[in-house]
Amino acid sequence: MHRRLRPYDLLDDTALRSIEAQADWLLENVGMEFRGDSTALDLFREAGAQVSGERVRFELGLARELCSSAPAEFELMSRNPARTLQIGGDGLVFMPGYGSPFVSDLDQGRRYATLADFRNFVKLTYQTPWLHHSGGVVCEPMDVPVNKRHLDMVLSHLTLSDKPFMGGVTSPERARDSIAMSRIALGRDFMDKHACLQGNININSPFVFDEMMSAALREYAAAGQCVCVSPAIFGGAMGPVSPAAITAQTLAEGMAGIALTQLIRHGCPVMLGSFHSTMNLRTGSLTFGTPEANLVTLALSQLGRRLGIPVRSGGGHVTAANAPDGQAMADSVNAMWATVLSGSNQVWHAAGWLEGGLTMSYEKFILDSDNCGSMLRMVQGMEVSDETLSAESYSEAGPGDNFLLTRHTMQHYAEANYESLLPDAGPFETWSENGSQSAAERANGVWKEMLANYLPPELDPEIRAELDEFVASGKAAAADEWY
Amino acid sequence: MHRRLRPYDLLDDTALRSIEAQADWLLENVGMEFRGDSTALDLFREAGAQVSGERVRFELGLARELCSSAPAEFELMSRNPARTLQIGGDGLVFMPGYGSPFVSDLDQGRRYATLADFRNFVKLTYQTPWLHHSGGVVCEPMDVPVNKRHLDMVLSHLTLSDKPFMGGVTSPERARDSIAMSRIALGRDFMDKHACLQGNININSPFVFDEMMSAALREYAAAGQCVCVSPAIFGGAMGPVSPAAITAQTLAEGMAGIALTQLIRHGCPVMLGSFHSTMNLRTGSLTFGTPEANLVTLALSQLGRRLGIPVRSGGGHVTAANAPDGQAMADSVNAMWATVLSGSNQVWHAAGWLEGGLTMSYEKFILDSDNCGSMLRMVQGMEVSDETLSAESYSEAGPGDNFLLTRHTMQHYAEANYESLLPDAGPFETWSENGSQSAAERANGVWKEMLANYLPPELDPEIRAELDEFVASGKAAAADEWY
Repeated sequence: MHRRLRPYDLLDDTALRSIEAQADWLLENVGMEFRGDSTALDLFREAGAQVSGERVRFELGLARELCSSAPAEFELMSRNPARTLQIGGDGLVFMPGYGSPFVSDLDQGRRYATLADFRNFVKLTYQTPWLHHSGGVVCEPMDVPVNKRHLDMVLSHLTLSDKPFMGGVTSPERARDSIAMSRIALGRDFMDKHACLQGNININSPFVFDEMMSAALREYAAAGQCVCVSPAIFGGAMGPVSPAAITAQTLAEGMAGIALTQLIRHGCPVMLGSFHSTMNLRTGSLTFGTPEANLVTLALSQLGRRLGIPVRSGGGHVTAANAPDGQAMADSVNAMWATVLSGSNQVWHAAGWLEGGLTMSYEKFILDSDNCGSMLRMVQGMEVSDETLSAESYSEAGPGDNFLLTRHTMQHYAEANYESLLPDAGPFETWSENGSQSAAERANGVWKEMLANYLPPELDPEIRAELDEFVASGKAAAADEWY
Repeated sequence: MHRRLRPYDLLDDTALRSIEAQADWLLENVGMEFRGDSTALDLFREAGAQVSGERVRFELGLARELCSSAPAEFELMSRNPARTLQIGGDGLVFMPGYGSPFVSDLDQGRRYATLADFRNFVKLTYQTPWLHHSGGVVCEPMDVPVNKRHLDMVLSHLTLSDKPFMGGVTSPERARDSIAMSRIALGRDFMDKHACLQGNININSPFVFDEMMSAALREYAAAGQCVCVSPAIFGGAMGPVSPAAITAQTLAEGMAGIALTQLIRHGCPVMLGSFHSTMNLRTGSLTFGTPEANLVTLALSQLGRRLGIPVRSGGGHVTAANAPDGQAMADSVNAMWATVLSGSNQVWHAAGWLEGGLTMSYEKFILDSDNCGSMLRMVQGMEVSDETLSAESYSEAGPGDNFLLTRHTMQHYAEANYESLLPDAGPFETWSENGSQSAAERANGVWKEMLANYLPPELDPEIRAELDEFVASGKAAAADEWY
């Protein structure tokens, strides 16, 4: 999916340079801790960084120089070549929410997510044309042992969908398993030449990589797969409270992680991620879709373009609301506009996210997906041509007439406007007679119908058997771990 | 209120010129009908337009030349100088919904609006810091005779609020009464020198001014008051179905109306308005907040800047939803981003609007107002300075620490982030214990509390008495008309 609309440039050159200088200053003076990862520390030392204990500091310009070998644009592939995504440039990729331990729907309420829910969301994402990417941990299958979840999750992505997806990152072994399973489906040689899997590497902001995350990063980078380096900053908690400071710190932390990917494998595809938001510092509540968070989103994509690294946004349809109500959609659409206008290349949490990410909502998934379609239409921009200006229409309809039956309307009415997934609310009287259904209630019918109509994509039975065998033996090889 | 963010320029120069050329072509070849208004026709004839019957056609460049005497920027004043608004340039003005015959709230449901409702919305608007303007027909007081409503409405705006407002337009007499009442409050001389009242002049698109509207336009223009010329186009019905055509037609119709204001009074303050949207051409439903409508919104502000005329947006928080639910807020926030980013100068329907404008919702008024505050924070942009980058914070908090108690956080936490009007949803558990209130349900408490705490602005008792007398004698002078 390619955008035609230019990104919105929030900051001028002076402001951009100040933020970059602050990021450089942070990398030189505060630096980054890589805890328990002597391999990473050795690599940084060899590259000329100043390493003391587990702290890595970068002299002016070094981190940016190390980042420079990462591609500004690359393809993310899946087992279906038609699903190939451009990451970077004018590419725009939407994927569902990531990481929720709970799910909810209007029938059963909120509950721990299960593998069945996970599979449902992979199916729904596969069926939604406005979501280009299958996501990663679309919800946590809490009924599967922690050390085996990644096997079921990767199997689901590879069998229930054929869109690109993300692998496990919670340990280097799980990262390796994810890569191995993808290689079964796509071929080892193919995967050595192409990015076919993404791994999300969270930074424990401020300025800490824990051992698991940097080790998983190294697995993905070594395999030439796409690493998304994601600082996680709530202003006032993991960094100062101002948007400018959060922006600079995110850039600094991100550059440190990106530098490591390039030391592992020169040219490894990578993304500058972020998970930033605000909090109500009186109550401690996390808040999403806020103007301050949206300003950071706008600024980070600009900085990513200057760094020459594709940007994974802090989140598309994000909200702190507990239900798919007016607040949920106001927060979400606010965040989405900032994300899309910023020129972000990959949009996480574009569907389903509630409660600051604690819950994937079936109904909000539909409401959000619908808005994804709307945004994708918008970024196609306005076509101005003789056909769209349609001077001839005015010889068919003049002052006081209507244009319903003109040649132009008849020819274009069916595709002129984006059509919502949601059943029309319709006029108040009809709507009342039909039970005054809220948007969430109308969405409830949509996801059920989609799941009822789901058909899986084709998959070579031999590959399927090999994947099943990999999962079975992986599960048999270890005792269950539940935390 | 002044924006610091640059507007988003949707269209490039070539596209802008094509649309302007199409508008010129429409004015030359289709022209505009001024039905039953010989005064307007005479003025146009004298100005060099080609008048045949009631149709006025403009040779290339004439309409634009006539528009050129209108100010690019002016002040809109009220009886309180502190409420003075800049219209044009980087000024940004929000006002509530306009024209709804119904109101709704969660307690009483949907019903015909009354004068009591009208007064409530004027009070709520007065109390909301994010709404700068008291609006016009914030809802139709259906319990007051049609020919006397304007008296009660203007009286409410002048006594329950001290923000600028809009007067009656449904007949020249009602326009004159509105101007006369404003003169009582502000002084005739003052009003002759300053714009203190706005009149919304709808065009019966395509290309028709009806007699009432052009006569009301002439009243406002003659008094030097601000005329908002508002074409009303739903793509496929009142114009061709494509966004480019709707944009060009709106510009053409708007220029014809603006030209008339300048023929009445050279330099009269005026705005390029619009009420445009899409419709589902399969079902006939009107749709709002859609990507196609939002593209038109973005384009029209750009064209208004080139014309040198302030722009009144097609609508801020607009939606076709029947309840203040997720669809309502998704539609509304989508429309609002396009409006605000476009650089629109005055945003109508920024609070309360439901059902394509048929209903003013008390709860949506609160949800929308809250988002107005968020947008106003956003357009202040990101301040990048030593204080906001806060290098010193990092000597107080290093890797793995938190920033909750740093000097910077302690100094700024109270004002760092926009604070929502809505009570925090809070964590799921607390929220559930408190009855799982939707955003609309939480908003229900907010407007009630606001009305309970309302205190009117001061008003000179002599002015008040004179206004009451004007209304009483106006009501006594005519029999009630109910339609």
